[in-house]
Amino acid sequence: MKPHLRKDLLSSNWVIISDERAFRPNDYRQKVQCPFCPGNENKTPLPILSLKKFGKWYIRVVPNKYPALIYDNKVILENEGLNKKYYLNGVHEVVIECREHNKKIYEIDHFEEVLSVFAQRMRIISAMKWIKYVMLFRNYGVNAGASLKHPHSQIIGIPLLPSKVEDEVNHFLNYKKKHNRCVMCDIIKDEMKYGRRLIYAGKNFVAFAPFASRFNFEVWIAPITHRSHFYLENNFQDLKTVLFAVFLKLHKSISDLSYNMILHSAPCNKKERIFHWHIEILPKLAMPAGFEWGSGFYINTISPEKVAEILNSGKVFKDH
Amino acid sequence: MKPHLRKDLLSSNWVIISDERAFRPNDYRQKVQCPFCPGNENKTPLPILSLKKFGKWYIRVVPNKYPALIYDNKVILENEGLNKKYYLNGVHEVVIECREHNKKIYEIDHFEEVLSVFAQRMRIISAMKWIKYVMLFRNYGVNAGASLKHPHSQIIGIPLLPSKVEDEVNHFLNYKKKHNRCVMCDIIKDEMKYGRRLIYAGKNFVAFAPFASRFNFEVWIAPITHRSHFYLENNFQDLKTVLFAVFLKLHKSISDLSYNMILHSAPCNKKERIFHWHIEILPKLAMPAGFEWGSGFYINTISPEKVAEILNSGKVFKDH
Repeated sequence: MKPHLRKDLLSSNWVIISDERAFRPNDYRQKVQCPFCPGNENKTPLPILSLKKFGKWYIRVVPNKYPALIYDNKVILENEGLNKKYYLNGVHEVVIECREHNKKIYEIDHFEEVLSVFAQRMRIISAMKWIKYVMLFRNYGVNAGASLKHPHSQIIGIPLLPSKVEDEVNHFLNYKKKHNRCVMCDIIKDEMKYGRRLIYAGKNFVAFAPFASRFNFEVWIAPITHRSHFYLENNFQDLKTVLFAVFLKLHKSISDLSYNMILHSAPCNKKERIFHWHIEILPKLAMPAGFEWGSGFYINTISPEKVAEILNSGKVFKDH
Repeated sequence: MKPHLRKDLLSSNWVIISDERAFRPNDYRQKVQCPFCPGNENKTPLPILSLKKFGKWYIRVVPNKYPALIYDNKVILENEGLNKKYYLNGVHEVVIECREHNKKIYEIDHFEEVLSVFAQRMRIISAMKWIKYVMLFRNYGVNAGASLKHPHSQIIGIPLLPSKVEDEVNHFLNYKKKHNRCVMCDIIKDEMKYGRRLIYAGKNFVAFAPFASRFNFEVWIAPITHRSHFYLENNFQDLKTVLFAVFLKLHKSISDLSYNMILHSAPCNKKERIFHWHIEILPKLAMPAGFEWGSGFYINTISPEKVAEILNSGKVFKDH
């Protein structure tokens, strides 16, 4: 069965059924030859982009061999009683960030160029007329659902606006209507004023443990001045600096760190100027359990104020 | 800091910050004396209920020693800039389902009585006038966020309607408005007609892999005729039978099964008769990753039709 979309009638959850992904290699479960390592280039589809120095690549962008979404120029609807299956147009790319298999993010010296490649690919995918949203995320470690250790990020272009993104856009719009300001600009001013949750404050970027952190050691990074679309940026020096500073602290305090890093950027529609792009780093120390899945509430066992204290002191967090 | 609620300004997510829970014992991380085993009764708060046979307890209900919510008769609001902290009234109980530490659910012979205790406690908590919703869930295995192996379930009474429950109630209401029928009644008719996702069909209960399953091997159980509130039930023989049948299949096909089992029942308000109570079993074979957290979409690598085929054949699922 081709990857396709199904909608749940009780919750409006969208689910992508993607049988093929079950067969993708997994570093954490069996011994595999890493398809992202030098020498194994023939194990990935042909690259979309390959940056080289002295004849050797150091960043490669390839189509995902086991895509959650596929490009297909027919949108077919299959019916079965109440239910519908939607075949879905989309783009799923992998950015292999360096040649080395085991580097942490802050050990990738050319990460400024990686960020620039993210923006470039997102710009191109956003320009495809059927794409409504482009997601960028980085899964690191087994508890974060990563299947390969080799440093990489994923870019997914989707022909509809995901519910979580739509919710977020609406929160920006409602706050604007009420206060005539950007809610993230106000949050940042607040965080810098109180300072109790600050992890990093530079000239252009700020990092903090958000007030209502869902996860242990959650950290958000945002540009201090209002900017809507990540892919319209063209200078990545300062973003690299804040990312490295934050991940140095996280890896220092937490042994065997797993995390999902998710870029929140405005939908492709250029009118969404009220959105303030930011990066959410979601470490995975504890597993969400029945209460979270059933209620949509999160339980967090470490307050963000405590997180800032631990990260800024350079202390090692003793797992409870 | 007492457990309290915080609301995220970007997403309206509710987060319970509960520092004390960090100190609860965890079977999976360190050697602990199980507080639920016979002989350690003094390690739990005094029981609310204790069912005994020949002088020995076989089911105990105790207040959670590390509650996510606490009973507190003041609701205090603390302000800090844009943000508010809400102290929250609630009830958090643990049902210790048997004396033995290592039993699987279908090995607990008196599970009918356990189900009856669930209903009884939910009935009592629902009657407290400040409680809007009562959740019941069972976390099993480390990947499902369980901290103790000893068979137990948790009951949480909340003074507000969780967003996921509200969404579900609205889906029932909207479908009713459009079709003048219950959406779950219609789903059940469909599943029994097509049969491709059926796991069990008895006189009073049905179990199936839902059409838009979010998780590998997700199974739902529901009464075939319309019933809104689980806690208004008083005969649990058939529910025990279907639960045992489903869990026998799941444990047979999946080695080292982890799952969250969540009861979806109507809010305490007796007017919500359109809700159709059901149980969702969410096995945790794979970890949700960046795409899921960022989009609200789920990716499932095994179609529910395949799941029904595997479970009904009694085959062992080979982990990919």
